[in-house]
Amino acid sequence: MPYSESEQAYLTRLGHRLRSLRKQRGLSQEALAFEADLDRTYVSSVERGERNIAVLNLAKLARALGVEVSVLLGSEE
Amino acid sequence: MPYSESEQAYLTRLGHRLRSLRKQRGLSQEALAFEADLDRTYVSSVERGERNIAVLNLAKLARALGVEVSVLLGSEE
Repeated sequence: MPYSESEQAYLTRLGHRLRSLRKQRGLSQEALAFEADLDRTYVSSVERGERNIAVLNLAKLARALGVEVSVLLGSEE
Repeated sequence: MPYSESEQAYLTRLGHRLRSLRKQRGLSQEALAFEADLDRTYVSSVERGERNIAVLNLAKLARALGVEVSVLLGSEE
């Protein structure tokens, strides 16, 4: 496990938020990946909190979901 | 140049926002890097828009600046 406990918690929350936003829109991982020009397996691993995703990929996912990146990141205390 | 024009513009805006927040707090790059547990040269390259920074490093910088990550990212249209 390359991440500290709090880092892993951060990535897990981000992944849950991504999954929730995707499902709200009725999109499959494949459909979201296509819209965002990313690989489906990559989207899947982000949703599982396994990726320390870079900001340009966050921006791609946010654009594909029609939200700002800050919505994807949510409010962190 | 590994980034598209719009991607580079995104990273450049992010870098400017980081620099602005840092200066508002009267912090040197070195002081911010120390607080965020990052390298000064890394902080410098992020400020110049040269890094597709990963979300956990964004979180470290935001914490060191006392803002949420969304403030660092700003409102993107």
